[in-house]
Amino acid sequence: MRQYETFELQFVGEVLTADYAVIPLVAEFTNSAESKKVYGFYDGEGVYKIRFLPEKPGEYIWKVSGAVNAEGHEICEAADGEHHGLVKAVDTHFEFEDGKLFVPFGTTVYALAHQENALVEQTLQTLKAAPFNKVRMCVFPKDYDYNHNEPPYYAFEKKADGSWDVNRPCLAFWHRFEAILDRITDMGIQVDLILFHPYDRWGFDTMSQKDNLTYLNYLLRRLSAKPGIWWSLANEYDLSQGKSLSDWDEIERYVAENDPYGHLLSCHNCFCFWDAERPNITHASIQTKALTELPRWIDKYKKPVIIDECCYEGNLPHFWGSISAQEMVYRFWRCVASGAYCTHGETFLAEDEVLWWAKGGLLKGESPERIAFLRELVESLPGPLTSLANGGMLTLAQMNDEEMETALEPVPEKLRDFVRSIAASMRRMEVDDRTAHIAGEHEWAAHAGEDAYLWFNDRQCFGEQTLPLPEDKRYRVELIDVWNMTRTVLEENARGATKLRLPGKEGLAVLATRID
Amino acid sequence: MRQYETFELQFVGEVLTADYAVIPLVAEFTNSAESKKVYGFYDGEGVYKIRFLPEKPGEYIWKVSGAVNAEGHEICEAADGEHHGLVKAVDTHFEFEDGKLFVPFGTTVYALAHQENALVEQTLQTLKAAPFNKVRMCVFPKDYDYNHNEPPYYAFEKKADGSWDVNRPCLAFWHRFEAILDRITDMGIQVDLILFHPYDRWGFDTMSQKDNLTYLNYLLRRLSAKPGIWWSLANEYDLSQGKSLSDWDEIERYVAENDPYGHLLSCHNCFCFWDAERPNITHASIQTKALTELPRWIDKYKKPVIIDECCYEGNLPHFWGSISAQEMVYRFWRCVASGAYCTHGETFLAEDEVLWWAKGGLLKGESPERIAFLRELVESLPGPLTSLANGGMLTLAQMNDEEMETALEPVPEKLRDFVRSIAASMRRMEVDDRTAHIAGEHEWAAHAGEDAYLWFNDRQCFGEQTLPLPEDKRYRVELIDVWNMTRTVLEENARGATKLRLPGKEGLAVLATRID
Repeated sequence: MRQYETFELQFVGEVLTADYAVIPLVAEFTNSAESKKVYGFYDGEGVYKIRFLPEKPGEYIWKVSGAVNAEGHEICEAADGEHHGLVKAVDTHFEFEDGKLFVPFGTTVYALAHQENALVEQTLQTLKAAPFNKVRMCVFPKDYDYNHNEPPYYAFEKKADGSWDVNRPCLAFWHRFEAILDRITDMGIQVDLILFHPYDRWGFDTMSQKDNLTYLNYLLRRLSAKPGIWWSLANEYDLSQGKSLSDWDEIERYVAENDPYGHLLSCHNCFCFWDAERPNITHASIQTKALTELPRWIDKYKKPVIIDECCYEGNLPHFWGSISAQEMVYRFWRCVASGAYCTHGETFLAEDEVLWWAKGGLLKGESPERIAFLRELVESLPGPLTSLANGGMLTLAQMNDEEMETALEPVPEKLRDFVRSIAASMRRMEVDDRTAHIAGEHEWAAHAGEDAYLWFNDRQCFGEQTLPLPEDKRYRVELIDVWNMTRTVLEENARGATKLRLPGKEGLAVLATRID
Repeated sequence: MRQYETFELQFVGEVLTADYAVIPLVAEFTNSAESKKVYGFYDGEGVYKIRFLPEKPGEYIWKVSGAVNAEGHEICEAADGEHHGLVKAVDTHFEFEDGKLFVPFGTTVYALAHQENALVEQTLQTLKAAPFNKVRMCVFPKDYDYNHNEPPYYAFEKKADGSWDVNRPCLAFWHRFEAILDRITDMGIQVDLILFHPYDRWGFDTMSQKDNLTYLNYLLRRLSAKPGIWWSLANEYDLSQGKSLSDWDEIERYVAENDPYGHLLSCHNCFCFWDAERPNITHASIQTKALTELPRWIDKYKKPVIIDECCYEGNLPHFWGSISAQEMVYRFWRCVASGAYCTHGETFLAEDEVLWWAKGGLLKGESPERIAFLRELVESLPGPLTSLANGGMLTLAQMNDEEMETALEPVPEKLRDFVRSIAASMRRMEVDDRTAHIAGEHEWAAHAGEDAYLWFNDRQCFGEQTLPLPEDKRYRVELIDVWNMTRTVLEENARGATKLRLPGKEGLAVLATRID
């Protein structure tokens, strides 16, 4: 047993052929500080397994009861330095349990596990060389444009009437699925595991709520002790035809309550965002292109925000699947320079219908190389980035008179009437018009305390720019060409208001890092 | 006297040195159909003038009374074919009085008339070679970044206390100003004349309302008979520190009531749009980047919509003055492919502070050439473009249940639940979030009846696209590269659903023009 690594107990017992999803099998792991109860699962052919994730080193005693009765003890060695535990949300960023910062640079391969072995192998090889440290993928197979194939296995056996028997998980599926998950997490890539999704022709999206919970029960018994997995309740929960909002509430609660370790937990929207202020939700996992609103949402949720779909690099005849590599790279920079995180996807038309976003295979686009450049830059910073903006103009429009006067206190007297008149003008607008009108205006700026400041100038072609650096610190200022991946030092020893001459083109960023 | 050309009567009388702005001088012009009353003005050195714009050919009798008393008659010749009368709003487009279509391609030179002669001359030469047929310019001088110079003249003389005496217009100003206006309109360029604006250090923005109306009275007497002028009540009326909303109401009414010919009349915002549904407002003159909302606004106002500020091509350290030439060109295409109109401006940093957007001079940017290409294409179409969109997703979100069911009638039964669930999801969102989230999704598509269809694919890199052309008509389909200004025929004889293979890059448009 070693800290942050899955510990497994295995027993042989009665062979089960029906109702083996939710079995009476529980274990208690106790160390000097606490006792944790975990449920075991049936793994076929009379094999019963219990998995446990030790989060502290030291001695554990364990006691198994139910279908199997046994007890024992283990010395848990301290972490080996290569395993860091679960990723957790800390304020508006992520850290592993050992305190190591985790900055998500995700990609999307929804139906990764539902492809033939050769394609899965190719996908894993591609991931190994790619700059991504998180992959969004589904438990259930995908039915959609370019996704017409049958998967090798399904999560359940079928009843005589052809419907899914959630009480009989298909063990061939789970063995293969777990092996793929393990291969991915062993590469240091987090699996953002999508538990339900609406793109379905098999009936997985329209199971009864009782069956939904049985499925989750078995999945949580099997997978909870694996530290590299996050729970994404759904891809586009709001397009599901089979579940009401109260069903989703219950699913969220059920996952949170039956996960002994508190894996990251979120729920991904198509339109209406799942409310990230809910206590069980650890971070926002949003689909949107409205990236200017990120500081406002981060400020509201006070949790990390990942833009898990911002459209995909590709050439499909769909808005969501036809952004350029450049635009994909810019969206990553917009997120990062807002103190948020972004997720990649790729959708190029292909004769063989193998599109990375669903099936994996090879990456064909030009964005991953630039995302690698950005990731390297971000990981070299002394801490997590948070936005320098405070919600900006839209927040101003939303204030009432009292909030406005409080906000005006630091504003010089002679400017206050001007700000009041701007706010009054915005408040007269219909909310839809106002938001559409204001939301485009944005400075993408973030900082790591006073140690680093990052401005992404996006498509603005500034010929000059004045950085408001602290007066009492010293900074190296670099100009970054986000597409051409160059970094040029503009100032070696800057402080205070620092005026830069810039080349007046799109796609530049400015990074100031402290040197004293 | 000739139809659509300014006719002027001139008399000599008493020399006035005070209170000569609003004088008792009125003329009545009567032809076989109607009688029109127009006011005359004092033009200095004992000269009194009356200007009249004859809109119909035939005989006019006229009678002047007040400071001067006289009468006479004139034969008004039919238009010479080079003069087309006032531009009027017709549905959501513009036409001259003689029925000729006018498609605005405007530019912005706010302080054009407030520069020294040599610079004005250079600006006029530049305009002559430029693709613009409308110019936004101010009566009052401009005080702002890069605008620190004093103008040669001001619109009024001063009182002994140094304040403006609106009752004594500065005739040197008006003579020079009119000469500039005439030079511009003689080139076939409409003047979108800005009557007030907030960028002021001289007190023109903070005159009393009585003085505002006196100024307008004199201006309307002098300029109303000039057909090439539009009234823009303000640039950024909502940033004015000197006028309340009811002042603006009165200004709008005053201009409308004292203009005998019904020149185009609008009012330009910074934040809150001036309500284009008001009866006196002939068209919307909007500042915004929220171009996806154009079909919704056009549908609401049922009037032409001009985006008179969409940011400027340039390299200033301001969001509004640092978009690339490419982005400026794309914004023109977005407007045109929405059945709306766009206005150019240019702001490149310059040692001499001569920036086109305010002072004129030379155009340095790369967008005008591409705007010329677009203008030529648009003017070759068989009629004005209107949007193919109906407000789209945001309209769906705004519907109540009853409106939704009506809208669903043409939708196939099996899709209705899906649309209902999308709408329900959007309606659950807070309005700000919903608008920000949805507003970016947009198809830029417009048509001229069944004679032409235009899609601007913007930054989408479609590798294929299916055009829903009418089954019973035939079309030539061209691929247009809006930056490289190329037109390539893709289909010579298309009808019905027409699937195109496209090169999967940004900045392409597709034009289908009827050939049968």
